[in-house]
Amino acid sequence: MNEAVKTLDGWYTLHDFRAVDWTSWRETSLADRERILKEWNTFLANLEVTKNIGAGEHTLYTILGQKADFVFLVLRETLEELNAVENEFNKLAIADYLVPTYSYISVVELSNYLASHMTGGEDPYQNKHVRARLYPKLPEKKHICFYPMNKKRDGEDNWYMLPMDERQRMIRDHGQIGRSYAGKVSQIIGGSIGLDDYEWGVTLFADDALEFKRIVTEMRFDETSARYGEFGAFFIGNLLPHEEIEGFFAI
Amino acid sequence: MNEAVKTLDGWYTLHDFRAVDWTSWRETSLADRERILKEWNTFLANLEVTKNIGAGEHTLYTILGQKADFVFLVLRETLEELNAVENEFNKLAIADYLVPTYSYISVVELSNYLASHMTGGEDPYQNKHVRARLYPKLPEKKHICFYPMNKKRDGEDNWYMLPMDERQRMIRDHGQIGRSYAGKVSQIIGGSIGLDDYEWGVTLFADDALEFKRIVTEMRFDETSARYGEFGAFFIGNLLPHEEIEGFFAI
Amino acid sequence: MNEAVKTLDGWYTLHDFRAVDWTSWRETSLADRERILKEWNTFLANLEVTKNIGAGEHTLYTILGQKADFVFLVLRETLEELNAVENEFNKLAIADYLVPTYSYISVVELSNYLASHMTGGEDPYQNKHVRARLYPKLPEKKHICFYPMNKKRDGEDNWYMLPMDERQRMIRDHGQIGRSYAGKVSQIIGGSIGLDDYEWGVTLFADDALEFKRIVTEMRFDETSARYGEFGAFFIGNLLPHEEIEGFFAI
Amino acid sequence: MNEAVKTLDGWYTLHDFRAVDWTSWRETSLADRERILKEWNTFLANLEVTKNIGAGEHTLYTILGQKADFVFLVLRETLEELNAVENEFNKLAIADYLVPTYSYISVVELSNYLASHMTGGEDPYQNKHVRARLYPKLPEKKHICFYPMNKKRDGEDNWYMLPMDERQRMIRDHGQIGRSYAGKVSQIIGGSIGLDDYEWGVTLFADDALEFKRIVTEMRFDETSARYGEFGAFFIGNLLPHEEIEGFFAI
Amino acid sequence: MNEAVKTLDGWYTLHDFRAVDWTSWRETSLADRERILKEWNTFLANLEVTKNIGAGEHTLYTILGQKADFVFLVLRETLEELNAVENEFNKLAIADYLVPTYSYISVVELSNYLASHMTGGEDPYQNKHVRARLYPKLPEKKHICFYPMNKKRDGEDNWYMLPMDERQRMIRDHGQIGRSYAGKVSQIIGGSIGLDDYEWGVTLFADDALEFKRIVTEMRFDETSARYGEFGAFFIGNLLPHEEIEGFFAI
Repeated sequence: MNEAVKTLDGWYTLHDFRAVDWTSWRETSLADRERILKEWNTFLANLEVTKNIGAGEHTLYTILGQKADFVFLVLRETLEELNAVENEFNKLAIADYLVPTYSYISVVELSNYLASHMTGGEDPYQNKHVRARLYPKLPEKKHICFYPMNKKRDGEDNWYMLPMDERQRMIRDHGQIGRSYAGKVSQIIGGSIGLDDYEWGVTLFADDALEFKRIVTEMRFDETSARYGEFGAFFIGNLLPHEEIEGFFAI
Repeated sequence: MNEAVKTLDGWYTLHDFRAVDWTSWRETSLADRERILKEWNTFLANLEVTKNIGAGEHTLYTILGQKADFVFLVLRETLEELNAVENEFNKLAIADYLVPTYSYISVVELSNYLASHMTGGEDPYQNKHVRARLYPKLPEKKHICFYPMNKKRDGEDNWYMLPMDERQRMIRDHGQIGRSYAGKVSQIIGGSIGLDDYEWGVTLFADDALEFKRIVTEMRFDETSARYGEFGAFFIGNLLPHEEIEGFFAI
Repeated sequence: MNEAVKTLDGWYTLHDFRAVDWTSWRETSLADRERILKEWNTFLANLEVTKNIGAGEHTLYTILGQKADFVFLVLRETLEELNAVENEFNKLAIADYLVPTYSYISVVELSNYLASHMTGGEDPYQNKHVRARLYPKLPEKKHICFYPMNKKRDGEDNWYMLPMDERQRMIRDHGQIGRSYAGKVSQIIGGSIGLDDYEWGVTLFADDALEFKRIVTEMRFDETSARYGEFGAFFIGNLLPHEEIEGFFAI
Repeated sequence: MNEAVKTLDGWYTLHDFRAVDWTSWRETSLADRERILKEWNTFLANLEVTKNIGAGEHTLYTILGQKADFVFLVLRETLEELNAVENEFNKLAIADYLVPTYSYISVVELSNYLASHMTGGEDPYQNKHVRARLYPKLPEKKHICFYPMNKKRDGEDNWYMLPMDERQRMIRDHGQIGRSYAGKVSQIIGGSIGLDDYEWGVTLFADDALEFKRIVTEMRFDETSARYGEFGAFFIGNLLPHEEIEGFFAI
Repeated sequence: MNEAVKTLDGWYTLHDFRAVDWTSWRETSLADRERILKEWNTFLANLEVTKNIGAGEHTLYTILGQKADFVFLVLRETLEELNAVENEFNKLAIADYLVPTYSYISVVELSNYLASHMTGGEDPYQNKHVRARLYPKLPEKKHICFYPMNKKRDGEDNWYMLPMDERQRMIRDHGQIGRSYAGKVSQIIGGSIGLDDYEWGVTLFADDALEFKRIVTEMRFDETSARYGEFGAFFIGNLLPHEEIEGFFAI
């Protein structure tokens, strides 16, 4: 098998972006709104159980601008479990007020190159540092940034036609920029070739949203992105802790 | 006639992607929902008859994310039969709750090169291995992956301007990757030049969805895809056996 | 005037693609549905009068997949007449159930090169073979295929910068492929530069839909399409004779 | 200031494309429809006053196909006046039945090169020929054609990187094609850099719609368009005189 | 850190474009409309408080054409505050009549190059000229122009692969064009790499809307834009002072 294909893969990931239908929400009685939010809270509390036993993760962030009002991010071991959460969410009463605006499916991915660096030969899926990357605890940072991306295949700028050592050199340099933001920006790389429309979905977390601008800008000058990066839409938002949902939806 | 045009063609294929209008569904009484699902089940049972006599195939898979809630995949001998199934489906009561989100029309295709390899000269349409490819039994694998694709015609990267032997060499190499996934990934290639917006529609089936990621990634590094592949949207999902439809729609 | 501009132009053409709003249709009483279809039939019968005196043509084909449920194809001598048919159609009760999904405006076109070949110098508009091409009787073939297309203007692949003799050579070669499908595929070329978003709208008719796949594939390997063809969406469908409309809409 | 920037600018222009919601219109009583059309007529009669004192222009053309049912074209001295007409139009009862489908904002433009040719040095805004171009009386031709366009900036084909004398030579040649259609095609060039999505909006008027096809085709073979032209959607339609509005909307 | 990444960043910015649902608005009673506008006015009056203490800015401009009826522009110190304004706006009764059509998120940005030019070495965030640029008072000019843009990464035309001194030379030249419009055009540059779909959002203000056309045209001939500029949609509009809102919405 081609070396490049050898990634380690962890949890499947759903980014589910929704806009609130504020008009319908406003037309709903206070009693109904309270009941609906309560049902949603129960659903979220059940997800906490999965989270607490380490069998999955989830979080909510509001989204700035008209692209969505919030993103519901869910990680699970199998596509069946992921689909079950999605299906259950769609059946909640709150879903009547939530218009789907975008979604993304990927699987948390660690490049083989990076993994062997971390394990020195042992079974990487047993290595606790590798596992912490593949089955990550979501950081409770104040901000999120999500964007899907491809590596270009465009005339002279064709990532997939490059020799492997050149690709590895560039990935290494690219990774160094990422590491220089350690402590400031956490990232989850979702591989999505064969799963969704782009090749990767990148999720960044930071307490200072300007760090998103800095890291993405710095990377854009790096050859990997400058010549080979192709970007989809960017979504940015603020952490929405469960206890603030009620306030966010209060009329 | 140009050698490249000589494909063998089997069943016409419809991929019909639908999102569920959960709000309307929730507003429907339990009795009505049961009646509507029962009517749909009768429709599906009728399709089983066609399947059992080998005159067509069909299946349902749920789809992850907001692109659709499920895909209804139907294969038939003629466009008239295919359209009849579609027309009958649209007239079911359940269709009121199913928003069309994407569809694809193609015809199961076997390249002449591959077919002559399989038959050694006899009439390929009489060869049982060829027939099994053109009129396939759908595998009951746990996952599906669908994507439409083109061969590029872009400046220096123009598949259709390549000499035939170069194209055949690349297709051969490409095919070897496919064969290395035998037993792990089943595929149906639908030719759609002149039938739909892309040139092919590819449907993969696997019990481990990561195999989709692996095979598509490995192929992407192969010159055929790296230089000449142009991909549409990717859809991924889970098998929805008839007996689980009720659960999927249960409120 | 530039030689290339000298086309012969016949009837103006409207391709009007519509999806049926099956939910609303199903909610309509049988009596109302019968009345509505009857009004539509009267409208179509009136169009037959125009057809019978050779002052225009029209036909209906169902369309496979979600792009539309059918296409209403109308040809008329002037844009005023074409708009009048469209306007009258939009005012029918049936139009309440027909969602517009795509349309295309063009004028039946014969290249000057081809026309002079057919006439040997006499006034081509008086030549009966030319007239039969410009004001065509629509063939009652079982299938239709429609797609709009451009000639590329992209870097080195710029059709409009080629010398005329090179263009003519390629068109001649291209035409030979078309002629090799005589009897199997009928075609109407609609010129649409200045009229709609692409430069041409191509309508093919055949009794075997695989012939669409064969001719478009063979042409794609021809330099004219391989280097210079740029294609829009492809629509494929089945003849819907007036007497089958009732069945198609029967609930 | 760069020579190319020196254009003369006349009236601001709004192309407002609308589709009729025929279903809602049909559901409206005859008395209401008459009242609504009468209100619209009063609005149009008021616009005539502005027209008669030479402070603006407006016209209506039906549009072929599904892109719109008609275009409302308005020219005014200031953006405030243009917005006021738009705002007033949106508040008419008829607007409830008119779905916006496309719009374009531009300002009637005369290139400095052309203007100095016309004036020989005097203040061009005082020259009556220049004024007739910048503040045009709309011709009552039977057909309209509208399309937005850019000059390309794509690799070797970059209009904005060409030396000025080369651009001027090409514009001169291009202009000669335009002049050869004098009497057959009238045109209004709207500059829209910084105002709308394309760089120009071109409006053509002719009594024979085939002249649109001829002029646009001939220009497409001209280097200016062949290498540097980038075109948006094309809209074509028929003059809708005020006295025919009632017939157009009659049920 | 890469030199290019070192920008100074001020207020976060939301451009919120909305179309009015005139039909629903017209169906609302005069009393209700007055009450709804009054609530909106109270909301705007509260924003004035923030403005008066220098903790943020906001303004309203109508938008020409169908892209929107107006833009609500808000600047705040944090994404949390920006989101709070957006959330509060969405909960107003007026929001039921305002259809979201486009939005853009960015942060007011000053290039390090420019900032050091202004400060000569001292902490730029303490410099009052720098602060006036990062936390700008919005000018009450009669017109607004907004557009998002990228620097190209396309084959030979790849901004991010240029050596820094070449980029700086071009930015300097580009800046000179901008400065030549001092007094005529005010601009706010919003950096949006990692925040929204384009790399910058440019907002221009002028009393003469033709100055937008002039400055954007002149810049387009400048190498920075000619070779490297990639533009999104352009929005243009007229100042809508609070006291004119009532008139704008009067039926």
